Amino acid sequence: MVCGEFELIARYFDRATGSRRDVEKGIGDDCALLHVPEKQTLAISTDTLVEGIHFLPDIHPADLGYKALAANLSDLAAMGADPAWLTLALTLPKVDELWLQSFSDSLFELMDYYGVQLIGGDTTRGPLSLTLGIHGLIPTGKALKRSGARPGDWIFVTGTLGDSAAGLALLQHQHCCNESVSRDALIKRHLRPIPRILQGQALRGLASAAIDVSDGLLADLDHILKASDCGASLNLDALPLSAAMQAHFSREQQISWALNGGEDYELCFTVPEINHGALDVALSHTGVPYTCIGQIKAAAEGVALLCDGQPVSSGKKGFDHFVGK
Amino acid sequence: MVCGEFELIARYFDRATGSRRDVEKGIGDDCALLHVPEKQTLAISTDTLVEGIHFLPDIHPADLGYKALAANLSDLAAMGADPAWLTLALTLPKVDELWLQSFSDSLFELMDYYGVQLIGGDTTRGPLSLTLGIHGLIPTGKALKRSGARPGDWIFVTGTLGDSAAGLALLQHQHCCNESVSRDALIKRHLRPIPRILQGQALRGLASAAIDVSDGLLADLDHILKASDCGASLNLDALPLSAAMQAHFSREQQISWALNGGEDYELCFTVPEINHGALDVALSHTGVPYTCIGQIKAAAEGVALLCDGQPVSSGKKGFDHFVGK
Repeated sequence: MVCGEFELIARYFDRATGSRRDVEKGIGDDCALLHVPEKQTLAISTDTLVEGIHFLPDIHPADLGYKALAANLSDLAAMGADPAWLTLALTLPKVDELWLQSFSDSLFELMDYYGVQLIGGDTTRGPLSLTLGIHGLIPTGKALKRSGARPGDWIFVTGTLGDSAAGLALLQHQHCCNESVSRDALIKRHLRPIPRILQGQALRGLASAAIDVSDGLLADLDHILKASDCGASLNLDALPLSAAMQAHFSREQQISWALNGGEDYELCFTVPEINHGALDVALSHTGVPYTCIGQIKAAAEGVALLCDGQPVSSGKKGFDHFVGK
Repeated sequence: MVCGEFELIARYFDRATGSRRDVEKGIGDDCALLHVPEKQTLAISTDTLVEGIHFLPDIHPADLGYKALAANLSDLAAMGADPAWLTLALTLPKVDELWLQSFSDSLFELMDYYGVQLIGGDTTRGPLSLTLGIHGLIPTGKALKRSGARPGDWIFVTGTLGDSAAGLALLQHQHCCNESVSRDALIKRHLRPIPRILQGQALRGLASAAIDVSDGLLADLDHILKASDCGASLNLDALPLSAAMQAHFSREQQISWALNGGEDYELCFTVPEINHGALDVALSHTGVPYTCIGQIKAAAEGVALLCDGQPVSSGKKGFDHFVGK
């Protein structure tokens, strides 16, 4: 049951913009009605964000609207999907029209950019939380799964790693950075990550496996390794680090954030040697650099972290003790 | 980011049962991958349930698991869809394994009954709430929308109305009923509503509009009337009321619950005269009675409530003053 106040809220989300031809019925019936074209596979991902767990209580509603959708879109990017439809379940402690305007404007701006249409959801009273359901389309057989990596494949990441964790540490005053351009850049990477949709699409047919870096490189690469039953070696010297990170934090801190920081929403993907040469053609037009950071190995080899070609510790806890040596 | 404890929880939901052939990839990658057959339209609905708002804090987890999915399935029933896939976003204040076992067993039992597969979701820490995303399939062009009712169409409901509200009143000790069979029957109607999936499917091609009774007959019929730009007359004498309701509550209370109670999850649908005769053939095998309760009128006529053919008040607040006269 929805009280009148919450029906009012729903109006912030019932906008005429972005009506897609594959949407027969969006908001306003018991269900949305959608058409999946022939030879396309539907990709679905669900994310819940709870205040105080997934975002800071003082987050600006425009940043929350952006980041919630960007993180959700990043799951589509990791499969190589085209974004299509969004459902939004929004639970709010009270009606704050300024908050709603800012949140919904930001959400719709990003939806419009990627051609996504809001097709339904629910608005309820309760402790602040959001659940987004994103739906995308992929040519059948072309999805980038986690399970396709094979020994010998090269491991790549897009962009740079660790910036989001650095930005969060700055926001939480756990670290400081007096140089405002770097500070702003790192915080922006935390609050406004860019989902690598174009890159995911370009990797269809080239990458053997892919995942987005949401929990941290080591944790997310481990998902690929488990699903593919493989090990890996990672060259720590090769980890792509932003100029802002390198200018203001210790080498140990940079590597730690790059490996374990999370929320970078870059793609980590594996490519067989035979497709290595085609990567440049596929990715160069997307305007985002990519870096080879290691190689897939047999499962028995586990995960080896290399500095100057020499192994350091593998595993999260051990690493900090070794990387400085 | 998911802590280990919450990965444990996720295991309650990663069961091998019910794997559908249209699911290429369920739980365990960045997205689920699904195949929608040719000439089928996808129907999607999202429901959020928050503790203290949508369910009582002392609800049994098995009842919560059942009812959350039943209410979500009811939206598919109202469109005439076949249930297919579910996403579940579950936010829990703490890990309680007994609670999780009971909740998930109940959820999976109902999923299995309707051939639904859990394809993804999210498990997070926070105040207790659930967001379910149900996905169904309908032969293209056969969906039962709210907007198809026309003046002259007959208005029907399945089953009986008001039982769920009576059951809730008994649970909350706002009313009492010393006869245990009736009491249990009414409470069961509140806690374990049956989604009218078979009935919705049988109405494809026969009903001009349909909705499920979640907010109360008057409120839900009003959605059909607004979407179809029509009015209606309702015969209060014809409202289908259960034996348990009739035996234990005043006539005024019965009618009030039947009109405004909500959460009955029966279908309210409209049928053109030309299809009236075919209804029996279509619905009789489903084992659930259906009742003609009124007729669609021109929008200008508004909503008329009739007792013995005489108008009483329309509208929720006014009704209680008139119906007893």
